[in-house]
Amino acid sequence: MIRSVTIIGAGNVAVHLGRAIRKLEQMNVKLYTRKQDFSSYDDDIRPLLSNDEAVFSQKSDLFIIAVNDDSIADVAAKIRDYGQMVVHTSGSTAMEVLKSFRNHGVFYPLQTFSANRQLDFSEVPVFLEVSGGETEKELGSFAARLSTKVSFLNSIERMKLHVSAVFVSNFVNHMFVQAKEITDRQGVDFRLLLPLINETIDKLQVLSPQVAQTGPAIRNDRLTMAKHLHALGSDEMKHEIYHLISKSIYQKSREEQAGDNSAEDIEE
Amino acid sequence: MIRSVTIIGAGNVAVHLGRAIRKLEQMNVKLYTRKQDFSSYDDDIRPLLSNDEAVFSQKSDLFIIAVNDDSIADVAAKIRDYGQMVVHTSGSTAMEVLKSFRNHGVFYPLQTFSANRQLDFSEVPVFLEVSGGETEKELGSFAARLSTKVSFLNSIERMKLHVSAVFVSNFVNHMFVQAKEITDRQGVDFRLLLPLINETIDKLQVLSPQVAQTGPAIRNDRLTMAKHLHALGSDEMKHEIYHLISKSIYQKSREEQAGDNSAEDIEE
Repeated sequence: MIRSVTIIGAGNVAVHLGRAIRKLEQMNVKLYTRKQDFSSYDDDIRPLLSNDEAVFSQKSDLFIIAVNDDSIADVAAKIRDYGQMVVHTSGSTAMEVLKSFRNHGVFYPLQTFSANRQLDFSEVPVFLEVSGGETEKELGSFAARLSTKVSFLNSIERMKLHVSAVFVSNFVNHMFVQAKEITDRQGVDFRLLLPLINETIDKLQVLSPQVAQTGPAIRNDRLTMAKHLHALGSDEMKHEIYHLISKSIYQKSREEQAGDNSAEDIEE
Repeated sequence: MIRSVTIIGAGNVAVHLGRAIRKLEQMNVKLYTRKQDFSSYDDDIRPLLSNDEAVFSQKSDLFIIAVNDDSIADVAAKIRDYGQMVVHTSGSTAMEVLKSFRNHGVFYPLQTFSANRQLDFSEVPVFLEVSGGETEKELGSFAARLSTKVSFLNSIERMKLHVSAVFVSNFVNHMFVQAKEITDRQGVDFRLLLPLINETIDKLQVLSPQVAQTGPAIRNDRLTMAKHLHALGSDEMKHEIYHLISKSIYQKSREEQAGDNSAEDIEE
C-alpha cells in the first residue's frame, strides 16, 4: 500500500494532485522543484528545493513526475530505482519513457488545472497505465482513493484522449477568444454571451453534441453565412475559421444523414 | 402599453418567448403557425393555425415574427398595418425588412432555444432595434418586463454579435462533436470529458479567455502537436481543424505579447 509520495514538479498539476493526496489518511506527500521562489504557494502545499541528489534517492512508495513533457526523461534519469513505483502525469507522453524502472506507469488526470481554483479531485477522471500486475493493483487502489473515475488506457489511446481534450478545452476556449475580439471591437460586453455559453454546455449534459448542433452551417443557410463573413471584415483568420468549421459542421450532418461516418463518401 | 401579442411562428424561439410573455400580468398572447400538427406542444403554449387572413389583420399591440430568416419578408407582407408594432427576432436580418410598417423593430434574444428545456427568460440578454422614439419606449418597457438584460443595437452591430454567438455556441458545439467522434472510436465514454468541459466554462466566468488559454498550441509545443496530428490518423478534416485553430491560438498569443491587436504585424 502506498503511504509516501514524492512529487517532482510544482506546477498546477503537481499542486492540485499534491493537495488531493495530502487529504488522504496515513499519507506522506512532498513536492520538489528546481524553482527558487516559493512565495506564490500556500503553506499547505509549499514545495521543497530539489537541488540535492538525496531528493531523488529518498525512500518513497511512489514518485510522481509532474513536470513539462520535455523534462520527464531528464527527471527520470535522476531518480534512483530501488523498486518503488515511478509514474508521470502526461497525456501525450508514452509510458515507455519510464521503462528503466522496474515498476513504472502513468497517472493521467483529465482536467485543466489552474492556480487559485478549488477542484474536487474525486470528480476528475484518471487514466492509468502500468508496467505489470503488481503495479496495477497498487496504483489502481491508490488512484481509487483519489478519484471515483479511474480507468486503464494504454499510451496510444491516452494520446487520442488527450487530443479530444485539446478539442473540448483548448480549442473551445479559443472560440471564446475569437468571440471576445468581436464583442470588444463593438464595445459590447463579452459577458452578455455567458448565458448562451452556459446553456450550450448545459445542453451537452443531456443531449449528444450531434443532436444539439444548431446554426446556419448545419442548415446550409448560405445567405446568413455570407452576411456573417461580411460582418467579420478583413480579419483573414476569422474568415478561415468560419469557413472551415462551417464546412465541417455541414459535412458531419450529411454523413449522419447518410448513416455513414466516412468522409470519403461526401460530395463537395 | 403592450397588452396583446401575436406571435407568428411555433419554433423554439416562438415557444420560449410565448411562455415568458404568457407569465406577464394583464397580457394576452397567441401563437400562429402554418404547421398542421400540434401534438408536440404543451397545452399552455399550443399554437393556432394561421390559415386565415383574419390572423394577420387581428388587433394586437405587437406582432412578433419568429420564423426562419428566409420567411420573415413573406410573413411581413401578409400582416396588415394599422399602426401596431411589428418586430422580428432574427440576429442576422436587418430591421429594414419591416420598414413598410409605421412602427417596426427587432427583438433579438441572444440564447440557444431548445424544445423540452426550461429557461429563465429574465436572464436572456435581449437586443432591441426600433424605428422611432415611440416604438423605443414601448418596446423597451415591454422587453424590460421579460428580461433584466435589455440593450439597443443597430442591425450591423446585431449581425456582428450574432457571428460571435455562432463562435461560442455553434462552433464550440462542433468541437464537442469532433471530440466525441474520437472517444467513440476509442470506446471511451465521451462523458468522461464533461468535468474538463465544465471546468473550462467555469473558468470563463472569472477569467478572460485570453488568460485562460492553455495547451500545446499556445506553448508552441511542436512535438506534442506532431504526436496529436499522428493520433488523428487519416481524418483530413480533423487535421485541418487542428492545424488552423492551433495556428490561430499561437498567432493570438504573439499578438498579445506584442501588445498589438493587428494581425498584419505578425511574422509568419
